[in-house]
Amino acid sequence: MGLKKTVGSDQDPTVWFQKIMKIVTLLLFLSLQLFARAQEKIVTGEQHCLYSSVLKEERRIRVALPRNYSNSKITPASYPVLYVLDGEMAFEYYTAIVNFLSKGVYASMPEMIVVGIDNTDRTRDMTPTRASKRAPDDSTKILFQNSGGAENFSTFIGQELTRFIDSAYRTSGFKLLAGHSFGGLFSTYHLLRGQPAFHAYLIHAPSLWWDHQVMLSQARQTLPKANFGRARVYVSQANNKEKGVFDAHFESIKMFKNICDSINNPSLAIRYEFYENEDHGTLPLPAAYNGLKFIFDGYQVDFKKIANNYASLSESYSAFSKKTNFHFQPSEYMLHFIVEYFKDNGKPAAAAAVLKQYQQLYPKTAPPTL
Amino acid sequence: MGLKKTVGSDQDPTVWFQKIMKIVTLLLFLSLQLFARAQEKIVTGEQHCLYSSVLKEERRIRVALPRNYSNSKITPASYPVLYVLDGEMAFEYYTAIVNFLSKGVYASMPEMIVVGIDNTDRTRDMTPTRASKRAPDDSTKILFQNSGGAENFSTFIGQELTRFIDSAYRTSGFKLLAGHSFGGLFSTYHLLRGQPAFHAYLIHAPSLWWDHQVMLSQARQTLPKANFGRARVYVSQANNKEKGVFDAHFESIKMFKNICDSINNPSLAIRYEFYENEDHGTLPLPAAYNGLKFIFDGYQVDFKKIANNYASLSESYSAFSKKTNFHFQPSEYMLHFIVEYFKDNGKPAAAAAVLKQYQQLYPKTAPPTL
Repeated sequence: MGLKKTVGSDQDPTVWFQKIMKIVTLLLFLSLQLFARAQEKIVTGEQHCLYSSVLKEERRIRVALPRNYSNSKITPASYPVLYVLDGEMAFEYYTAIVNFLSKGVYASMPEMIVVGIDNTDRTRDMTPTRASKRAPDDSTKILFQNSGGAENFSTFIGQELTRFIDSAYRTSGFKLLAGHSFGGLFSTYHLLRGQPAFHAYLIHAPSLWWDHQVMLSQARQTLPKANFGRARVYVSQANNKEKGVFDAHFESIKMFKNICDSINNPSLAIRYEFYENEDHGTLPLPAAYNGLKFIFDGYQVDFKKIANNYASLSESYSAFSKKTNFHFQPSEYMLHFIVEYFKDNGKPAAAAAVLKQYQQLYPKTAPPTL
Repeated sequence: MGLKKTVGSDQDPTVWFQKIMKIVTLLLFLSLQLFARAQEKIVTGEQHCLYSSVLKEERRIRVALPRNYSNSKITPASYPVLYVLDGEMAFEYYTAIVNFLSKGVYASMPEMIVVGIDNTDRTRDMTPTRASKRAPDDSTKILFQNSGGAENFSTFIGQELTRFIDSAYRTSGFKLLAGHSFGGLFSTYHLLRGQPAFHAYLIHAPSLWWDHQVMLSQARQTLPKANFGRARVYVSQANNKEKGVFDAHFESIKMFKNICDSINNPSLAIRYEFYENEDHGTLPLPAAYNGLKFIFDGYQVDFKKIANNYASLSESYSAFSKKTNFHFQPSEYMLHFIVEYFKDNGKPAAAAAVLKQYQQLYPKTAPPTL
């Protein structure tokens, strides 16, 4: 009776069934739509929200992985990590430059993981000391009152962020740091602090005027004698001197260059470049490109030469590893390409020689057959 | 009875209901998962598959939209479009460079839509004539047998692709084309063909050796006298001359430079740049950056000067519009920033003057109040 009562009414199971099937169909449709839309998107990376106990706040982190990171045809490799300050600005172009320079057999650098660190309180994090300054346009305004947090930020990067990245991704241990303007000031601070040490620094238009040039005093003390473990440092300066006035920003970078020129510390390789055609805003992209080329100078292999000198491949990587104080080896992708190239171009002995190196370095993968 | 019979069995509506609810819950969960995953991804663009009746095949097209494209706080604007050949290689870095150079009030160029065209048969599409060549490493191999499709590819771009982009997105009509190597050969062909005309061309390391330098003959005929409507052309060359041999690729670009130097055609602005530190592979990224800076030279506004000369803002855009033969005006974002800047820095008269221009250009939006 109870059942009968509902026949034909809203409680009828068949009506329910139809309603539910409509919902199921709709949900299926929506799922497929979402799936289809997701497939159409061009995805270059992923974001994480990381709680920092040191900074006592959530930080947004962007991560771009190398194109071969999930290539199932090769042995899972580990990669250097490039940490980029001002992630919301700089992550996109650093990722594009790294992908560009690490592509193909003429790659100028290894594939890398790019990590962008977005800002919350930029002045607080990037400045090594607590200082302030009157606004140039309005002397009643005091700028930078919440400053001097670089030590904390450095601890966050060195202890929390790098641990997270090293646990979440396959990292090789080779680390780079890149910053512009206040980010360049922080990168200089991080370099001079010594710990945690990175292997390379990209320092673009650093705000070295900060707090009576406190970082220049530090540089004069630390640069000549500390052991930087063969760190490679690229410093860039824009052509934006304000005419007719003393430009503290411009002059302080020139003074830093002079300090770098005056020291002779074999544990450190510094390159300074002046950009005649760039201003403070346009500098960081071309300087990122040239800076990475400087840091990885010597990485590129002239693989056609290997046909006449089989050892030149490993010699080239040995020389670069010595220069950077870190072990680099040919990627599996590159070895695969070289073997195929020699096979296809009538050089079976060269192909066999490279294949031998391939099998030594990547014993787990089936290498290209001869 | 018929109903009773099914109670407790597989046909029981309550069992059905439970089963369906499980499916519903699962689907809801999956939808949410997909949504959550999508939110974590960093998306820089979208892909389309476009069927070309001219080429008789599907083409993959990548599209990156300006960051303010969907900004609901401003009047929907239309944007120039940069068409990038070798989309699978070049789309990512062109997008990053365009986003970088068009950012903020010191923007060196307008925000743009970037369209990447992926390859299917690169040699066929990029080459203006049917020709072939023996492989340098193996004289029994004949290269480039399926060539000479540039006219078709040009028709695809000019008729099918631009129509699709113009119908799917808000485009201003200002169009640029960028290509490297064979893509540079095609861009040269497209420029010399005249129709459909683009406003600017980025031609990097073009393969002008193609078919006995057929494009150089064309250039000698067309460049001196055709009307290019003030097109801006940037030609870049890498430092990769093969030593000790006649390098046809290298020499043909030098010959093109000499032709460009020898003509005096006021409807065309050509800039050639040689890259001492770049090879054929590394050239296109820095040349893309410098090429865009050349094409948009004069676009950047020194907005602080406006305080002393209110007309300088519109004068600056007028001069650039005249130079490029196309109407450019300040973006709403920029005007908003300038009004706020003058308000905040004790310059109410300058703020009011810029606000007036704002209201004339963007009457539909509520501008910043004074």
